[in-house]
Amino acid sequence: MDVKFKVWVEKKGEVVLSNGKLNILKTIDQLGSIHKAAEQFGMSYRHAWGMVQKIEKRSGIKMLETQIGGSDGGGANLTTEGKAFLAKYEAFSKGLDKLIENKFSKAFSKG
Amino acid sequence: MDVKFKVWVEKKGEVVLSNGKLNILKTIDQLGSIHKAAEQFGMSYRHAWGMVQKIEKRSGIKMLETQIGGSDGGGANLTTEGKAFLAKYEAFSKGLDKLIENKFSKAFSKG
Repeated sequence: MDVKFKVWVEKKGEVVLSNGKLNILKTIDQLGSIHKAAEQFGMSYRHAWGMVQKIEKRSGIKMLETQIGGSDGGGANLTTEGKAFLAKYEAFSKGLDKLIENKFSKAFSKG
Repeated sequence: MDVKFKVWVEKKGEVVLSNGKLNILKTIDQLGSIHKAAEQFGMSYRHAWGMVQKIEKRSGIKMLETQIGGSDGGGANLTTEGKAFLAKYEAFSKGLDKLIENKFSKAFSKG
């Protein structure tokens, strides 16, 4: 048997961040583009952009700074505050699987 | 912000037990009746019974012993093995919220 879990952060009952949303934000930053990141996750630009806006509204943190136009057609990158927020979430998330698996093994190995 | 989580146990990719299923099994045992427990959770008898059968099949543990008929119209109670399995799950589940919340607080209190 395997233990499975899902974890996420809420504010006033609304999801602020989850592993899925974290991955999308990081991919936007890596590719420098909401458009390309949305494509990679098989979602529409509209959906990805709406997701970012919800994260920003609910966390109260501006996540992305976008440049419009230019020779490379603009771009989107994480703000310093956004990066700091994601780093905290990753620090929380890191090792959580081992923690939960250990507690599971301990409980189920008895008797 | 609040951290939220869901946890469950799987076998070969199928859910064996979750907090929800645990509660239903315990309620069946307390009320001595699948029928009454199903009613309390707003589900059909058929659904509750199917759920119990899936848990038994996936865990390989007979969870309920049922008595048919008698002056009280039969009844359903947890087997010794079923009780032991649920006790292990509860031992695992107990304190998990605090563990996760502490890890969350630590990560998010920095900086």
